[in-house]
Amino acid sequence: MKPAIGRDTMMCMSLSARPGNFGSRFHNHLYDAMGIDGVYKSFSTTDLAGAMAGIRALGIRGCAVSMPFKEAAITLLDDLDASARAIDSVNTIVNDGGHLTGYNTDYGAVRTLVTRSGITADTPFLLRGSGGMGKAVAAALRDAGQTQGTIVARNADAGRRLAEQYGFGWVAELDDAPAAGMLVNVTPIGMRGGNEGALAFPDAMIAQAVLVCDAVAVPVETPLLAAAARHGVARITGEQIAVLQALEQFVLYTGQTPNDAQVAAAAVFAAAG
Amino acid sequence: MKPAIGRDTMMCMSLSARPGNFGSRFHNHLYDAMGIDGVYKSFSTTDLAGAMAGIRALGIRGCAVSMPFKEAAITLLDDLDASARAIDSVNTIVNDGGHLTGYNTDYGAVRTLVTRSGITADTPFLLRGSGGMGKAVAAALRDAGQTQGTIVARNADAGRRLAEQYGFGWVAELDDAPAAGMLVNVTPIGMRGGNEGALAFPDAMIAQAVLVCDAVAVPVETPLLAAAARHGVARITGEQIAVLQALEQFVLYTGQTPNDAQVAAAAVFAAAG
Repeated sequence: MKPAIGRDTMMCMSLSARPGNFGSRFHNHLYDAMGIDGVYKSFSTTDLAGAMAGIRALGIRGCAVSMPFKEAAITLLDDLDASARAIDSVNTIVNDGGHLTGYNTDYGAVRTLVTRSGITADTPFLLRGSGGMGKAVAAALRDAGQTQGTIVARNADAGRRLAEQYGFGWVAELDDAPAAGMLVNVTPIGMRGGNEGALAFPDAMIAQAVLVCDAVAVPVETPLLAAAARHGVARITGEQIAVLQALEQFVLYTGQTPNDAQVAAAAVFAAAG
Repeated sequence: MKPAIGRDTMMCMSLSARPGNFGSRFHNHLYDAMGIDGVYKSFSTTDLAGAMAGIRALGIRGCAVSMPFKEAAITLLDDLDASARAIDSVNTIVNDGGHLTGYNTDYGAVRTLVTRSGITADTPFLLRGSGGMGKAVAAALRDAGQTQGTIVARNADAGRRLAEQYGFGWVAELDDAPAAGMLVNVTPIGMRGGNEGALAFPDAMIAQAVLVCDAVAVPVETPLLAAAARHGVARITGEQIAVLQALEQFVLYTGQTPNDAQVAAAAVFAAAG
């Protein structure tokens, strides 16, 4: 039985322009299941500096950071963990008595899932997008051993920089992209409330792939993932990434590790929100 | 059944150097009982300005303010309700889309309880203390019709100013105070973690009183209230004040009014924390 919320209750939160309920439901479910005196709530803000001042002043233990704050948050932190430093993108803040450290748990989640997929290192991949999530995924792919990649991004500066940093190629348009066995989407294409219903890669490219990865977690079945399923192509879903990275956040915030059954139950509850 | 905490959950909070759990338990109990999608948590801070920036940036709906922030908070607000303006002391902040208004719900609670007590207007009273709560109580006593009062406060500036504002007398020491039928404590004497165990008025004075009022709410039975009970003297307890003022906050934050049974159940749950 979880204690009633009070002065000693650890609070964690998230900051996003378009907050979902996945994090709130995942973390609060685990607090309940594990008897942890904690509460988690997602927030939106138009004042990142004010929100960060509040995190420090109120002793909020941890904060997940989503679009569009993953890069802007960095200047407001005291320290960067190695997972965030190379990537220059933060999705997690841990508050140790007012000392704020930025982490990137998307990086570790994607790296783990790509490794688990068993895809061969020389499979050519296309990474569509070059924002905060794109940086984490490019680094994860490189560190998972993938050597043959092309960044597809209309933002030439960001796209070229990302490609050069990790030794990949860059093209502005999908039409100019080389053939690829792995397709990775890190844009909001297919996301609820954004380009919902749109397909991040052409159906013909999906049909020829061996692995499709979508960073979009809401809805769970994006058009890209649905097309992959239709063609019998292996998938790494946004939900899988969301669960793994949220689990890493949970461990960072609480110092406790839930067992597999607890994680699975929290993931099911979170996805139902 | 209350919904799971998420992006749409209304959050309220409290700020205090020594936060209790009364507010968290009272408000959260009512959210549950009334099916309101809300969460309430008490916080401590050493950075009032940062905490207020967080309230604005995160859209926290309401914030209770306790010692030592009741006066300092005023300069950080956009507006003062009449209940707080005359008193120059705020115990409640309501956030309307980033516009912060200060209220004083202690004032209304004490005024209501004094009026309900049926004490005659010319009963001499002693008010021990001159801080933020003292200001609210002095105004409430005057507005409840009480005319014969003496402020007892070692802080000569604050004590004299308060006495002059409401047409009461002032003395520095209890030894110099006139005889009184009503004894009111607004100092931390008898409070848990402070001067716990100490008696705010001498036992002989309590024995001769007709009404004793203690603003200290934790513990529920302060030495002053216990002595009043022993001598068969009528009481206004800190818990009664805490419940009434918390109820007024609840209505300000949510726009909803719980019924008497819901308030009573929340009060019992809150006091058990």
